[in-house]
Amino acid sequence: MKLNQFGIRPTTLTEEINELQRIKFIDEESLDQAPNQLLRILLCKCFPETNTLDQQLNNLMATADQNAAQYLTGQQVSATAFYNLTFQLLGLEIEQDFNLATPLATKVQLHYPQFEHEYLNAQDLVHGWYQLLITHTIHGQTYLDELASRGYFVKIMQTETLPKPLFFNGKAQPVFDTTKLIHEVVYVESSQDTDHDQQRDLLKAEIIRPVETNQGLQVPALYTSSPYNQGTNDFAGEQLTHNVQTALHVKQPTDNTVQVASLHRLVPNPSSIQGEVHTATESFGNHFSYSLNDYFLARGFAVVYAAGIGTKDSDGLRTCGDPEETISTTAIIEWLNGSRTAFTNKTDCQQTRAWWCNHHIAMTGRSYLGTLAIAAATTGVAGLKTIIAEAAISSWYDYYREHGLVVAPGGFPGEDSDVLAEETFSRQKQAGDYLPIKNKWHQQLQTLTQQQDRLNGDYNNYWDQRNYRRQLHQIKADVILVHGLNDWNVKPKNVQKLWDGLRNLPITKKLILHQGPHIYINNNRSLDFNDMMNLWLSYKLYDLDNQAAQILPNVLIQDNTQAETWQVLNDWNNPKNPQTKFYLAGDQLLPAKTATKAPISLTDQLPTTQFQAYNHDLTSWQHDLTDLNNTNLTKQRLTFLAAKQAQPLVIDGRPQLNLRIACAQPIGMISARLVDYGDFQRLAKMPSMLDSQAYDQGYHYHKEDLKEYQLAQQTTPYQLISLSHLNLQNRTKLTQVEPIFPGKYYDLSFKLQPTHYQLAPGHQLGLIIYGTDFEMTIRPNQDLKYHLDLNHCTLNLPHL
Amino acid sequence: MKLNQFGIRPTTLTEEINELQRIKFIDEESLDQAPNQLLRILLCKCFPETNTLDQQLNNLMATADQNAAQYLTGQQVSATAFYNLTFQLLGLEIEQDFNLATPLATKVQLHYPQFEHEYLNAQDLVHGWYQLLITHTIHGQTYLDELASRGYFVKIMQTETLPKPLFFNGKAQPVFDTTKLIHEVVYVESSQDTDHDQQRDLLKAEIIRPVETNQGLQVPALYTSSPYNQGTNDFAGEQLTHNVQTALHVKQPTDNTVQVASLHRLVPNPSSIQGEVHTATESFGNHFSYSLNDYFLARGFAVVYAAGIGTKDSDGLRTCGDPEETISTTAIIEWLNGSRTAFTNKTDCQQTRAWWCNHHIAMTGRSYLGTLAIAAATTGVAGLKTIIAEAAISSWYDYYREHGLVVAPGGFPGEDSDVLAEETFSRQKQAGDYLPIKNKWHQQLQTLTQQQDRLNGDYNNYWDQRNYRRQLHQIKADVILVHGLNDWNVKPKNVQKLWDGLRNLPITKKLILHQGPHIYINNNRSLDFNDMMNLWLSYKLYDLDNQAAQILPNVLIQDNTQAETWQVLNDWNNPKNPQTKFYLAGDQLLPAKTATKAPISLTDQLPTTQFQAYNHDLTSWQHDLTDLNNTNLTKQRLTFLAAKQAQPLVIDGRPQLNLRIACAQPIGMISARLVDYGDFQRLAKMPSMLDSQAYDQGYHYHKEDLKEYQLAQQTTPYQLISLSHLNLQNRTKLTQVEPIFPGKYYDLSFKLQPTHYQLAPGHQLGLIIYGTDFEMTIRPNQDLKYHLDLNHCTLNLPHL
Repeated sequence: MKLNQFGIRPTTLTEEINELQRIKFIDEESLDQAPNQLLRILLCKCFPETNTLDQQLNNLMATADQNAAQYLTGQQVSATAFYNLTFQLLGLEIEQDFNLATPLATKVQLHYPQFEHEYLNAQDLVHGWYQLLITHTIHGQTYLDELASRGYFVKIMQTETLPKPLFFNGKAQPVFDTTKLIHEVVYVESSQDTDHDQQRDLLKAEIIRPVETNQGLQVPALYTSSPYNQGTNDFAGEQLTHNVQTALHVKQPTDNTVQVASLHRLVPNPSSIQGEVHTATESFGNHFSYSLNDYFLARGFAVVYAAGIGTKDSDGLRTCGDPEETISTTAIIEWLNGSRTAFTNKTDCQQTRAWWCNHHIAMTGRSYLGTLAIAAATTGVAGLKTIIAEAAISSWYDYYREHGLVVAPGGFPGEDSDVLAEETFSRQKQAGDYLPIKNKWHQQLQTLTQQQDRLNGDYNNYWDQRNYRRQLHQIKADVILVHGLNDWNVKPKNVQKLWDGLRNLPITKKLILHQGPHIYINNNRSLDFNDMMNLWLSYKLYDLDNQAAQILPNVLIQDNTQAETWQVLNDWNNPKNPQTKFYLAGDQLLPAKTATKAPISLTDQLPTTQFQAYNHDLTSWQHDLTDLNNTNLTKQRLTFLAAKQAQPLVIDGRPQLNLRIACAQPIGMISARLVDYGDFQRLAKMPSMLDSQAYDQGYHYHKEDLKEYQLAQQTTPYQLISLSHLNLQNRTKLTQVEPIFPGKYYDLSFKLQPTHYQLAPGHQLGLIIYGTDFEMTIRPNQDLKYHLDLNHCTLNLPHL
Repeated sequence: MKLNQFGIRPTTLTEEINELQRIKFIDEESLDQAPNQLLRILLCKCFPETNTLDQQLNNLMATADQNAAQYLTGQQVSATAFYNLTFQLLGLEIEQDFNLATPLATKVQLHYPQFEHEYLNAQDLVHGWYQLLITHTIHGQTYLDELASRGYFVKIMQTETLPKPLFFNGKAQPVFDTTKLIHEVVYVESSQDTDHDQQRDLLKAEIIRPVETNQGLQVPALYTSSPYNQGTNDFAGEQLTHNVQTALHVKQPTDNTVQVASLHRLVPNPSSIQGEVHTATESFGNHFSYSLNDYFLARGFAVVYAAGIGTKDSDGLRTCGDPEETISTTAIIEWLNGSRTAFTNKTDCQQTRAWWCNHHIAMTGRSYLGTLAIAAATTGVAGLKTIIAEAAISSWYDYYREHGLVVAPGGFPGEDSDVLAEETFSRQKQAGDYLPIKNKWHQQLQTLTQQQDRLNGDYNNYWDQRNYRRQLHQIKADVILVHGLNDWNVKPKNVQKLWDGLRNLPITKKLILHQGPHIYINNNRSLDFNDMMNLWLSYKLYDLDNQAAQILPNVLIQDNTQAETWQVLNDWNNPKNPQTKFYLAGDQLLPAKTATKAPISLTDQLPTTQFQAYNHDLTSWQHDLTDLNNTNLTKQRLTFLAAKQAQPLVIDGRPQLNLRIACAQPIGMISARLVDYGDFQRLAKMPSMLDSQAYDQGYHYHKEDLKEYQLAQQTTPYQLISLSHLNLQNRTKLTQVEPIFPGKYYDLSFKLQPTHYQLAPGHQLGLIIYGTDFEMTIRPNQDLKYHLDLNHCTLNLPHL
């Protein structure tokens, strides 16, 4: 077990004493106590649920022979006893996790203080106990968090006053009363009219704020913009999902698929304000909540959810990723920051202000939610101090298209931006609101469908408007990016291109890459994600001088070869990374050029039965494509295998494929997968549940399951590293369409999805070149043939 | 979508009016209103979160042309408008789920009132609205539950008083303040000394009770006895797990493997009580909770968790299923019922009473938790009014053994009662408590290991003591049993044998069988499980005269051929069920006897490589065994296939296999699986998530994911129906061991696990006879051969 912690703030003894006094763990006399007396005091603070402290001391072993009660009758306190006792408090078990004679021989990797002498004085004990409180227990939270979830702060506050917010080791503590959270709704008037009713769009915002704000405390706001949050139209979305069994089409050559366009926005006048009320008049009941937000609600942050234009109870129409959606996203921030009007309801024009907010706002969320955080950040909107964008889209083209091709998010073939607009258009859920705008909406939907242009797959104006990276230079907020290196839904190119663009911006930026797919990681045991975010948000939103920007690693990447291991790095996909070149030869990837070879061929057509079977069974297709022993797709793929790795190779960045290729038709699409081959134990695809409901957000409050990526019990023969797809008409430049002359060889280069992947010794790198990708591309099943001149085909691998 | 409801209490209009007044939905003047005025009042009650009722009325369509606001300007209210409005309130969507012109043409199957005339009067509207409130929304809860989770009751209670508990349609409503639940701990003194320290065992009980009990309200208690609840020793359990690659052994013949034994119990005197305090002095923080219990906490029930002897903070040693464990289970009930002492801690002998409890206790829980509910019920302990036992063990022999063989719970090969005892011996988690009793515990563990007797697998005294059905006649509590027909962990024989034993007992008993594995079903959308349990517990624990015993179906079984379908039946596995006989012939199951055939043979030995591969890949073994086209186990299995079903056949009960068989060795074990063959869409193995966090237990309180068993998207070639395993030395009687003379043919009969399974037309029944079951039995891989005389081999299928 490895309990990695990256969110620990280094402290001096003086700071530790002050902070321990602040949380009432010790008082001013504590340091004058004899070590055994002080140890008793410290131990007794660790059982807030009971008065039977003798019983608790009996339950803990101090040495191999004495329990804590017996040990405390002596004067001295040894470092060994300290480790024994604190390890038990952290949940480590004797015999299994450590032994009482030599506790530091434990195989559990955890944070603990070093002592220079065996017998501890009062200062050592205070220092040691401070370190105990900030150390993670076996449930992946600090021991102080565990004490809090067992009632430590609640008990203190029965007799004493604690500051609110209360910081410990630079992180806000759960001292806010989560049983009395205030839930209220406002309607923010946005400077837009997306449903063209000559009225500015009113946007519903749901606020959860600590009751302590009613006594004058101003708190920061964590704002999550989630178009899903008011419900989704799954059935309508399914109906609209596009057929992917469609032909690849000859595109008209053009030098530039993007035209200069000016955006005409007609914005009606604001409503005239009829009055002002202090607090909102509408409330809300149960709702979907993001557990990271819940965690902060207990710690003195407000949380705001808004779904944006075209969602239930708001005005407007969905646009899926365009600037209007961004405007609706930042409108909420402007209200929180005091520069925009919100009303208590949609009719009475009574304004209400976010007087409870300290004008420090962060955005949080995963997928579309994180995407809108990026969208807002690229406007430079005032008040937005930071975003924590997880698995987020930075350009919608990189979500629904690739290199001039329609390429679906993995698992959702046929989905497109119009489908997502329809799915999130939750105004449809209220018939009285929907029917009057139904025709307008269908018109808008048709426009989306037409402009997204599935026929060509080009990067056109529609997609350019949906590329947040165009305004990247406007970003003022500091940025934390989190992404799964195996996220084939929002593919890693989204985070990499954003990261590349941020590299030289004068903001603080941090990157966390995990080995999972499209999931949250904040309940992962081996990483103190919540602590890091707490350190960060206490710094950014409460202006706490906790050195968060220096303490948090710039880049943190989960190791793919062993469980519970996270690497601290300075950068990812750095352009200065060295490159290794492989030459494609026969069915091999070779380190050097070999004798001239005849061209080899590849077809993209399948017998109808096989084609139909794959349409309904993507797992079989993926297996047949990747398994080198399988012969079902022999003609439809070219495979190249490198020698077994002698040394570890850490691929870091975007592999580049350079091909000399000819098509038999005036059209062509090429896919490539980079695969790690060899029968080895690898990390499981999904984290497994370690302990149900074991991860606490506060005292008798929300709980989460504790999870961890473990090594799979059984070996697997291969694992996907990266992939890419290309329309051969876009071989030179994304925005350029060229003709293909059948039989003519073209030289082209394209980059695969970025990765950070260690090929361990014994593993073999494999490359598969093929046409139709049943998981992602359209499935033309046309009579397409390709010839590769292997004398001019190479693979460049950037690595560390 | 089918929103089935079985927990609805039929009501008269007078009752409906009274109940609506009780929850302040209408007042005494309501019935005097004009229909449109009354409809406005009723509609306005449905938006507790806001005052902007006009807005809400605009959002609802009453007819194809008019929204509710417009419609209410007219005098009349049509049934069509009523259905349109209430369907929208329930979450149905126009176009997708129904149309405004003919709402009752909806494909959504839901509960709605019938009206005899198109235009509704005030009485119709009141009746209709009452029915709306008890109808399930698309989130699988009553509309009143949804209103409650949106703040309905909280808003009422801001200005008016509501009775607590508050019943509506015979079910307790969430009017209790879940933000102020009281958490306290007591230590119950049990009449036992399982750790032989000459002190009675003190057992920790964790209590959660509504704060309203402090004002004099006495509430019932839901008691969940969970040995897992104080933590588990997973690592130690794994270490102890038995090797299943072990030889089958020649057993000594005996007429009876059970001896008459008397249980000597020496119980020390009780502690002398030093005083009494009103309330407990110890509290507890976050803990694992069962969502059904949480649901009832909001509705005026207390919840008690206890882990029993040998668990953290309690005394004693684990025994896994024996009478001592049962005594520790009922001790908590006796305290709740006022007849046993509990102390505030383990040292001070200050007693405290359950004065807040109305002496009406129910037990809840799944697996081991439900097992202990059965254990307690079979003692007839006073105060225990009912148990809701889900996926529970009724005899530990039927969990760890079968027909004289060691047979593991599916998925846990090598687990046994000693392993489970070790896993749940959470005293080990407190070193100071554990080390002094370590030797005693290891001794006890050795005794368990020896007495469970993996060598012979016999039903001996050890298992007889762990067979709760021996005392079945003592049951006084009414019993609700819930089990998955595909639960290969706690196999269905456990619930069937208990059900058979209850059939003629003078208690109320109900049975719910679902098509899932070893899981909870209370967040399933198509079944109103929580409503049914609410009706039941309001009746049993609050003595509410709500006819629950008559209303709830005696037997409710989920259909395996279509989603969201539950059959109401009167019995299951009724001995009077007709039987169909199949004759084994060649590779066929035939309806009539055919010409004489030569014996056929079967071996149980595998080449080492294949054997080792299966040891590490149970999925492949299961596939190779079951797939009729696969030839990897041709010599190790005999398969028999019936003709395609022309008519549906509903198997109900325990298939019986009658064999004439000879062994080549003096030992033998035979396994059998009954399989449904044919490429068809079947129910998915696990329910899928419909909506995250959508199932509410109260107002801003716990939430669950909403789930449902759906038809799998893809067809599957087969599905397991039932199975069994037999040691041929136990061919005559479970408790009798006979010799096997090699080469001699024996006639024997044994029953497979009970089921309720519809073989639909086109499906084919298959039977597989084999030796080693890699998923469950030991894996001897010995040179065992069997010969079957097919002229005397038949299969009897009980059916409806």
